[in-house]
Formats: sequence, C-alpha cells, structure tokens
Amino acid sequence: MTAMPAPLQFHFDFISPYGYFASLRIEALAARHGRTVDWHAMLLGVSVLKVMGLKPLMDTPLKGDYTERDVLRYAREIGINLKRQPRDPVMNPLPSARALAWVRRYHPDRTAALAHAIYGAYWGEGRDLSTPESLADLPLPGPLEGDTMAQAAASEEAAALLRADVDAALKCGVFGSPTVVVDGEMFWGLDKLDQVDRWLTRGGW
Amino acid sequence: MTAMPAPLQFHFDFISPYGYFASLRIEALAARHGRTVDWHAMLLGVSVLKVMGLKPLMDTPLKGDYTERDVLRYAREIGINLKRQPRDPVMNPLPSARALAWVRRYHPDRTAALAHAIYGAYWGEGRDLSTPESLADLPLPGPLEGDTMAQAAASEEAAALLRADVDAALKCGVFGSPTVVVDGEMFWGLDKLDQVDRWLTRGGW
Repeated sequence: MTAMPAPLQFHFDFISPYGYFASLRIEALAARHGRTVDWHAMLLGVSVLKVMGLKPLMDTPLKGDYTERDVLRYAREIGINLKRQPRDPVMNPLPSARALAWVRRYHPDRTAALAHAIYGAYWGEGRDLSTPESLADLPLPGPLEGDTMAQAAASEEAAALLRADVDAALKCGVFGSPTVVVDGEMFWGLDKLDQVDRWLTRGGW
Repeated sequence: MTAMPAPLQFHFDFISPYGYFASLRIEALAARHGRTVDWHAMLLGVSVLKVMGLKPLMDTPLKGDYTERDVLRYAREIGINLKRQPRDPVMNPLPSARALAWVRRYHPDRTAALAHAIYGAYWGEGRDLSTPESLADLPLPGPLEGDTMAQAAASEEAAALLRADVDAALKCGVFGSPTVVVDGEMFWGLDKLDQVDRWLTRGGW
C-alpha cells in the first residue's frame, strides 16, 4: 500500500481578492497531482500589520493603485464578475475565519464548501459578513446550517481554534494570502500557482 | 505600412534578483510578439523606501526569509548558478544605473548588452559594482568600452539622465522590480511575465 500524499496546505484571508481567485483554482490543481486541499483562514491584520510592520496593501502608495488595477484585470481575464471592488470598505474577517476554523474541526469535509460560500458571498456578491449573524444566510451544504455557523462564529471555542491555526501558520512562516505549502515547501502569491503545479509535477527540483 | 508596435518598457533594479531573472526572459517574450524592449534602470531605494515608506525586502520579517528561499528555488528551477546570495551585502546600484541611463541616451542599441553584462557580473559572478571604476572590467560589445563606462557612471550628466528616467517611471506608477509596461498597462513581478505573454497574445482583454 502506498501512503496518500499529504494535502496541499492552503492559507488565505477572506478579505484578500488574490486568495479568492486562488480558491477557485486550488482544488483542480491539487487533484491533478492526486492531492487534496487543507483550507486555513489566516489574518493579514496579524501577519502583515503586526508581525511584519507594514501598512495595509491598499493604503500603500503606488502599490494600492496597482493592486486595484491588477485585481480587476485578473477578474476580467478569468471571466469573474466582482460585485465588491478592491477599494470598498473591508469587512471584519474574524467571524468568517472563526466559523471556518470551527468547521475544520467538526466537519472537516465541509471546510471547502464553507470557504467557497464565504468567498462567493463577499467578493462575488459584495455582501458584508462582518458579524456572526451575517453568516446565517450563506448557502451551505448539509449538515452545516446557517444558524449553527452564526453561533460557531460567535463562540470562544472558534476564536481559540482560529488563534491556534493562525499561530501555527505564522510559525511556519506564512505571511501572505494566498500561500500554498506543499510538503513543507512554501509558495506565496496567486501568480505562484503555476510554479506549484510544476513543482508537483517534478516532485521538487 | 503598419506602424511598429511600441517596445515593452522594462524597469528593473540591478540589486533585484527578480529583475535579473526577468532580464533573461524579457527579450524572447517581446520577440514572440514582434516587440522590442526598452531597458530602464530604477531605484528601489527611492520607490520602496522613500515613496512607499517600506523596509527593504530582506529586512522585512517573514518576507525576507521567504524571499531568500524563493530566489534560490527559482534559480534552481531555471538552472542558473548564482554566485551572489540574496542575503549578501547589497551593492550601491547608482554607478550601474547611471551608466545604463547614459548608454540609453548615446548608444541605445547597446543598452540591453550593458544590462546583461552588469546583471551577469553582479548576480552570476558575485562581483561588486559599487564604484564607477568597477564597471571598467565589464565584458562589453563595441563601441562601448570599460573606461568610458566608468567615466560615464561618475558623470553629472549620467546622474541627471537617471534621475529623469526614475522620476518618469515613478510618475507612471512603477514601484517594483521587475515591472513591464505594455502600451501603458503595468505588470509587476517576475511571476507576471506569463500574464504579460497572454495579454500580448490577446491584445488586452
């Protein structure tokens, strides 16, 4: 018997449009190489602002303007209609990230579905998900239910689970969204997914 | 008669390993689309440190470590042997950048050759080019001569030419190395070259 290869560790912040774009490709990429995906919400407010001491991307001179254009250009290239614009007010990502950490623990095979539902609602439909209650209306697969998500997002337990996951990711060096870790090898950025693909094809180099 | 399509505007800092890697691909990319390349030295010390207010990349927590690994991994992928390591002391890029600005003005068809010679000496061979005199030993095509390069690099005129080019690039929003501007459309990052290729193929989207 051959051991199953390890899942791709996929780290993303729900407020990150590049994380959203990557979420639309990561499963197909993994499947091409017989892998699955382990979904981890991260918090750029912790890694970028606190640990790295940088400004928010959109508030960085020159880079903010470039990012706005780059996000819209990429959306257009892949034919995605974004209802939320890069310059729109940013939601509080904590309820979504906490709900995801809770689902990872109690319904791991529904983690991807919840991540897609949150990303689709926030970036695709432009909905604000800044409160636990706002998660109650997400389109979710059974056995997940909206009310349960709202309760989980408000719970101490979910907060602790997220904190542990974010701390573990930081210890591995994860700082940006999206980041893919393949058997301990870290790749940062949407534009890196093609290199991840080549890496998996060759088994390193 | 059809007008020649505009050259790709290629901006890079000689201290940037990603700029070096891009310099090895940019001409083939341009040629595939019937384009030429206009080479511009830029200064990350101006855009990143002064205008954007950020730390040097290698001094940024988490990102510095990631970048070190990423640079070596990419070099290995394309089979390049770097004598200089990402953590080695950084040269003063001004003499090289000034010499390039001077050659752009007086021997424009030799700009690419000088850029390749500088990048190859600095990253490929690990030579320090922090002084104008250090440019005298570069392998250069006629009519360029080492002594002329050293003199040009030390001249007020070259300093003024570089300043004008850097200011113009900043006004266009150029902040990182490498950056490619295609008919006014800006793409930042080594990992963007494939998207530039697709953009040129489709003529925008």
